[in-house]
Amino acid sequence: MPRPAPRDLEPERIVRLEDDAVVVLDQRRLPDEMVELRCRDAAELADAIRTLAVRGAPAIGIAAAYGLALAAASGHDLDAAYETLAASRPTAINLRWALDEMRPDPTRERAERIHHDEVARCRRMGAYAADLVPPGARILTHCNAGGLATGGYGSAVGAIRAAWERGGVEQVWVDETRPLLQGARLTAFELEALSIPYAVIVDGAAASRMAAGEVDIVITGADRIAANGDSANKIGTYGLAVLARHHGIPFVIVAPTSTIDPGTASGAAIPIEERDGAEVTPRFAARNPAFDVTPADLIAAIVTEEGVHRAPYAASLPVPVRSR
Amino acid sequence: MPRPAPRDLEPERIVRLEDDAVVVLDQRRLPDEMVELRCRDAAELADAIRTLAVRGAPAIGIAAAYGLALAAASGHDLDAAYETLAASRPTAINLRWALDEMRPDPTRERAERIHHDEVARCRRMGAYAADLVPPGARILTHCNAGGLATGGYGSAVGAIRAAWERGGVEQVWVDETRPLLQGARLTAFELEALSIPYAVIVDGAAASRMAAGEVDIVITGADRIAANGDSANKIGTYGLAVLARHHGIPFVIVAPTSTIDPGTASGAAIPIEERDGAEVTPRFAARNPAFDVTPADLIAAIVTEEGVHRAPYAASLPVPVRSR
Repeated sequence: MPRPAPRDLEPERIVRLEDDAVVVLDQRRLPDEMVELRCRDAAELADAIRTLAVRGAPAIGIAAAYGLALAAASGHDLDAAYETLAASRPTAINLRWALDEMRPDPTRERAERIHHDEVARCRRMGAYAADLVPPGARILTHCNAGGLATGGYGSAVGAIRAAWERGGVEQVWVDETRPLLQGARLTAFELEALSIPYAVIVDGAAASRMAAGEVDIVITGADRIAANGDSANKIGTYGLAVLARHHGIPFVIVAPTSTIDPGTASGAAIPIEERDGAEVTPRFAARNPAFDVTPADLIAAIVTEEGVHRAPYAASLPVPVRSR
Repeated sequence: MPRPAPRDLEPERIVRLEDDAVVVLDQRRLPDEMVELRCRDAAELADAIRTLAVRGAPAIGIAAAYGLALAAASGHDLDAAYETLAASRPTAINLRWALDEMRPDPTRERAERIHHDEVARCRRMGAYAADLVPPGARILTHCNAGGLATGGYGSAVGAIRAAWERGGVEQVWVDETRPLLQGARLTAFELEALSIPYAVIVDGAAASRMAAGEVDIVITGADRIAANGDSANKIGTYGLAVLARHHGIPFVIVAPTSTIDPGTASGAAIPIEERDGAEVTPRFAARNPAFDVTPADLIAAIVTEEGVHRAPYAASLPVPVRSR
């Protein structure tokens, strides 16, 4: 394994536009190898998104933005590229948000601004979220809501970074996050690079860590936040929120406003991607929903680049940024 | 993969005594291969138990009983064999119970009677537990509390079998059970052999199945039941019990009386085995507790071969059977 280093998490290593390709760090190969994948058109990029070479709601939005810029520069049909990219994964709303941001001006400059702005939003929301982290906290997180998922810095991991820089983190519990192990492969990789103390645990071990009094706060990202605050995130997140409530531990979501979908009234209307059961087990019958929905009433706070939002979320959530 | 068949689950295939060895079906190799492991003395058998070639609280008790009979027949030091086997794993109390049953009469006949009786207990408790399963039930189970774990028939899976034979099971949700996948490898293998409808899910998916109204009852085994009803079982069980409570779903434990430890007052006194973090991830820092404790107040019923026991368990739990 390459020894993880902070430079591995720089925004242009995670996703960038070159003259003839959108280049992504292939997250399927991490942590074993640092390999870049060159996507030469929207179809190749959509395939990279579908197969999780690039993943994480904000990061797939950014990648799609670059994909539309590439299509425009290549003289390809923009509507077709838009539809190909928008259809690659159903749950994260950031994908469609970024494509809509790009449509009036599908240039490299605009895509790079979206990328830059999303990372800047992560830094702002990380600072807000760090205010919620008690000194010496033991933080539990699920999946990877790090720089790899957001194109740089991270949302939930951004909050952990900001709290760590203030001296406020004693330990991070990293759910391994089955079936694809984004926690054990990617979040552990990032925390190792950042020298933040952590331990990976199986998803089933979170409850007993809480019962033992070893979790002060649960922080995750989100893939889509409905207008009422119901939030879709990686499968397993909802169970963590129930467990956090049972143990009196705050459950906090950190996500940029590009994750908020004012057009979805509640979690019931969020489409949940069902992936191939072979990702769970190739041998036997399996079901593999990739996301679940945490109802707003289990969420202590939703933190965006605009600040800390509390229930009732229908009133407190900001609207997504629109293009300038 | 060998196609699973009911004969693969016969008691003497799971564990038996031959003239010079305790022979176990190597559960580490399932479902890929049906391979037997010959343990020629107590040390080899203790190693097989430690490395989970044979696992499941009742099954390791039965294997240890055969191991003591083998030591006696081989003229080995019985106290040393007892200590070697008793020290192989710390959490399951059945191990020590079976060794204590054997001590006064460490013969093949007694070991075979223990094995036979444990399987007979499974059939009795399965019938009792099936009374708790509503018609057309969707049952969720964790880890493997099947025939492989009990030397035949199964405890939680025995309850599922008994309910299925009455026509009372629509679907079994099988938690894959990380890190060692006893659900995805072993319980799925057993249900496939028995033609009972099931689907494997990642452990993190149980909560959303419950929220969707697709779970009517949760049934698991146990590795040690304290005098007050607090129950240790595979890591992840406690979280399921909390989730079941949140969703108003009964959480039921099925285990033979050999799992009850009157000498342990409450769950706080149950030793929890901490296994190598490399079982979770070989790359990064990890913690790997193998069990957790479900407090009695989250358990709707504990079912043994003596019947269905309800809170307060200090009054209702039977004492373990003693030798005749």
